[in-house]
Amino acid sequence: MMNVQLTVPSMMERAEKFFKKKQVISRGTKGIDRLNYEQIAARTRRLSCMLHELGVKRGEKVGTFAWNHHRHLEAYFAIPGIGAVLHTINIRLDPQQIVYVINHAKDKILLVDDCFLPLFEKIESHLPHVKAYIIMTDEPELPETTLKNCYHYDQLLEKGDPHYPFLHDIDENEPAGICYTSATTGNPKGVVYSHRGIYLHSMSLGMADGGSLSEADIAMPVVPMFHVNAWGLPFAAVWLGTTLVMPGPFFTPQLLAELIESEKVTLAAGVPTIWLGLLKELESKKYDTSSLRAVLCGGSAAPKSIVKAFEEKFDIPFIHAYGMTETSPLVVLSRLKSYQTNLDKEEQYDYKAKQGFLVPGVEMKVVGKDGEVDWDAQSMGELLLRGPWIASEYYEDERTSEAFKGGWLYTGDVVTVDEEGFIKIVDRTKDLIKSGGEWISSVDLENALMAHEGIFEASVVAIPHETWQERPIACVVLKEGYKEKVSKEDVMAFLTPQFAKWWLPDDIIFMEEIPKTSVGKFLKRALRTQVLEHYEINNV
Amino acid sequence: MMNVQLTVPSMMERAEKFFKKKQVISRGTKGIDRLNYEQIAARTRRLSCMLHELGVKRGEKVGTFAWNHHRHLEAYFAIPGIGAVLHTINIRLDPQQIVYVINHAKDKILLVDDCFLPLFEKIESHLPHVKAYIIMTDEPELPETTLKNCYHYDQLLEKGDPHYPFLHDIDENEPAGICYTSATTGNPKGVVYSHRGIYLHSMSLGMADGGSLSEADIAMPVVPMFHVNAWGLPFAAVWLGTTLVMPGPFFTPQLLAELIESEKVTLAAGVPTIWLGLLKELESKKYDTSSLRAVLCGGSAAPKSIVKAFEEKFDIPFIHAYGMTETSPLVVLSRLKSYQTNLDKEEQYDYKAKQGFLVPGVEMKVVGKDGEVDWDAQSMGELLLRGPWIASEYYEDERTSEAFKGGWLYTGDVVTVDEEGFIKIVDRTKDLIKSGGEWISSVDLENALMAHEGIFEASVVAIPHETWQERPIACVVLKEGYKEKVSKEDVMAFLTPQFAKWWLPDDIIFMEEIPKTSVGKFLKRALRTQVLEHYEINNV
Repeated sequence: MMNVQLTVPSMMERAEKFFKKKQVISRGTKGIDRLNYEQIAARTRRLSCMLHELGVKRGEKVGTFAWNHHRHLEAYFAIPGIGAVLHTINIRLDPQQIVYVINHAKDKILLVDDCFLPLFEKIESHLPHVKAYIIMTDEPELPETTLKNCYHYDQLLEKGDPHYPFLHDIDENEPAGICYTSATTGNPKGVVYSHRGIYLHSMSLGMADGGSLSEADIAMPVVPMFHVNAWGLPFAAVWLGTTLVMPGPFFTPQLLAELIESEKVTLAAGVPTIWLGLLKELESKKYDTSSLRAVLCGGSAAPKSIVKAFEEKFDIPFIHAYGMTETSPLVVLSRLKSYQTNLDKEEQYDYKAKQGFLVPGVEMKVVGKDGEVDWDAQSMGELLLRGPWIASEYYEDERTSEAFKGGWLYTGDVVTVDEEGFIKIVDRTKDLIKSGGEWISSVDLENALMAHEGIFEASVVAIPHETWQERPIACVVLKEGYKEKVSKEDVMAFLTPQFAKWWLPDDIIFMEEIPKTSVGKFLKRALRTQVLEHYEINNV
Repeated sequence: MMNVQLTVPSMMERAEKFFKKKQVISRGTKGIDRLNYEQIAARTRRLSCMLHELGVKRGEKVGTFAWNHHRHLEAYFAIPGIGAVLHTINIRLDPQQIVYVINHAKDKILLVDDCFLPLFEKIESHLPHVKAYIIMTDEPELPETTLKNCYHYDQLLEKGDPHYPFLHDIDENEPAGICYTSATTGNPKGVVYSHRGIYLHSMSLGMADGGSLSEADIAMPVVPMFHVNAWGLPFAAVWLGTTLVMPGPFFTPQLLAELIESEKVTLAAGVPTIWLGLLKELESKKYDTSSLRAVLCGGSAAPKSIVKAFEEKFDIPFIHAYGMTETSPLVVLSRLKSYQTNLDKEEQYDYKAKQGFLVPGVEMKVVGKDGEVDWDAQSMGELLLRGPWIASEYYEDERTSEAFKGGWLYTGDVVTVDEEGFIKIVDRTKDLIKSGGEWISSVDLENALMAHEGIFEASVVAIPHETWQERPIACVVLKEGYKEKVSKEDVMAFLTPQFAKWWLPDDIIFMEEIPKTSVGKFLKRALRTQVLEHYEINNV
């Protein structure tokens, strides 16, 4: 076979040749921009040209700090197009971590949305490797700024060659991108994506049994482009000639619903909170969402009730996905097998509320206390993954050895597997409660608690116990209107019929709020400290 | 990213884990066998084990000489599973060529359908490399034979280990398969498929914008498994857990129609003559074909009338495909772009009757007399292809340099490209008629002729001409009932309004039959010799 390398620039070249007329619909600060792939490709080549002019060399990193819009999309291809590495910086990191990741990656140039200028004016002096800032803005002129070596994105592009050639001798194993994932302790950890990894992941997104993305789709990535490359959708969409709808910086549930209706979006991708918000919007006002063939939901587990609401109330297929920064991210999808569509509806929702089974191309092992676990939907084990779009290390980071062992990624997620091969996340390894030699899933208890009509949110953590090693404690926030009206005894009575006795929490603590991470996940470490203080136990 | 290799055995392992219950439905000489993937995988491992026991080493070739059935499918995975090379021998080659390809590949073992025993008894003494024959049969015992070192397939499998491990250290660039393509002159030429090539081609078959094959499909490859690996469908189908329907050796249009109805086939793949036959059957008797989501048609161009008949009369989407042994084969599909579905029906059929545009992953150039041609649907040029599942050479063959130049495969097909990037084959380079410095497509003239109600088949060849270099001559076979009733003048009058004057054939020769190749294509070389003899011109 020909030694043809799988590279990112070849994907843009396909759009340029075959999908000239297809559009990228990008919501900016002054309305909606509509550019076709012929224009996008020419602008991408101009940017490649100017990055080269500004001295970016093969293998060097170029950072982006931006929302979902067409300029960010151009950067996705222009940077790997000259053999450089696209570093999408998570804008939700705290400033100290932002400085850390930019310096750790040694970003040479930063492409920054104008709304973030004040931040960079503050941290500029801590970024010794950055040689220039390119400001992505809808304004015709550069805003006033104290930043040095600052360029106006569109003005810079005007100087670039619209036919500038992408590199054609890239080895598919060269780096094309890097994302940092926030660690529970310490600094964020970098994950490098190769051209090959991005290409194969895009194929997977385009497979009927994977993301099923196609030219016919009108895809709206609500998941941010600074978050695992918006799940790789921008790469795959351009390659396939998919129409892209970019919601820009200031999206609300109402705005998303309006875009779905007006642009006839067929596929939208985002985290559960996005879909919860959209659900409320759809319930409050009538929108035409008949164009949607699926919403893709990942980032954290969505409860069965959301799956049901989308499918039953609005006839919108809801596809659960599982992945992480280390896995590009798509590895598991809750797509029903053909013969499962004959099950009764409730059973179907049970499967759909699980994370799903492996997409073609990825392998797994689930390892419990005594080796690989049975596929019995009961036995818990840590999920191990292996595949051509899964990282093999953290970028220049000693923590590599914690997660990558013997050719497998240790995900830190504890799962069960049913006989169909569907995995269900029951916990993070570190949040699992080890009681009397058995494992208790904090997530299962939390889901049960949050199904109570009076409970707004709940989180379960372990406290040390002399006899049992650890025991679960439930922290509960009541809804407005239920405060003072739901007692510990009520909550226990609600849980008791649902679990084995030894699973039940030893105590319920009512709280005003549960501490959360920057991306809205429960911050269990902080919560556990609070709980230990509550019982006056020394933190261990 | 992890250095995970793309290999064939990993594809069977996926079916074995996730699609235990899904079936391979195989029509044999004694009725229909239904084996699920758990059984198929165990039998495949047994075969791997026994091939190893019989001394097959990594890199050595094992030949198959068989129709489409589950045993052949097992061989597809068992042979690459031990690092050996699957050589699917075209049963339609003449015995001399069969001897040539087996000796050229140095096949160590042959897996042969029992119906072909007499052939191998005759040629056995000419096959010095073959150490054993394994006979695939529905009979419980080996038929009487003079062949030495002969095994009964199922009896042999009983001795194998159903848990025999596939090789796990295969490099993706190692060979997994070899097919020989019949050459117009000389011996067949070998094309080697790597594990990587087969894997990526399978991904392409599974892409929504490619073959769109999925777990939900019930796929029937009518195209033989000895013909470019049945277009790669068996590999992709197993990997995706697709239900496979294998029509076995003795299929007729009636039998295909019955299988489509009884097994609820969703996707069937074959050459135009198969679909022409099926069409007649569907017109003559009522079948339920509502399960069919598409028929895939390749091998040679199908006329627009077939496309229309399938879609309009039977509501069966008809997808034209283009490829060749050298391209694995899928490279081009006539799938409409989303906005083309708004065209009027007749225009849609015009696009669907073309070969289509490139599937994701493949690149093309179309080179005419003066370099790359414009995409104007007029300018003709030779189609050049490049991609990770396209061969880079003929196996140990000096003719490599004729077709592989500068990193491109020269297909020998002359095409036009329209502004949407759809290619249309107008001729083979060698059949193109060069008249007065311009090119005339023999295929266009043939298609026009065959649209005449009285013409059964027609072929157009060039004869030398003093002034114009070459001129076209049409050879025509009339339908029964039209013989003696259609004159040269009638045919010319029929063609005249359709073509520029200088395209019109200089003469019409009525014939009883047009010489054909073993796979039913016009044998233009032989025809041209007949025509030259007809005019008493010396062959040049």
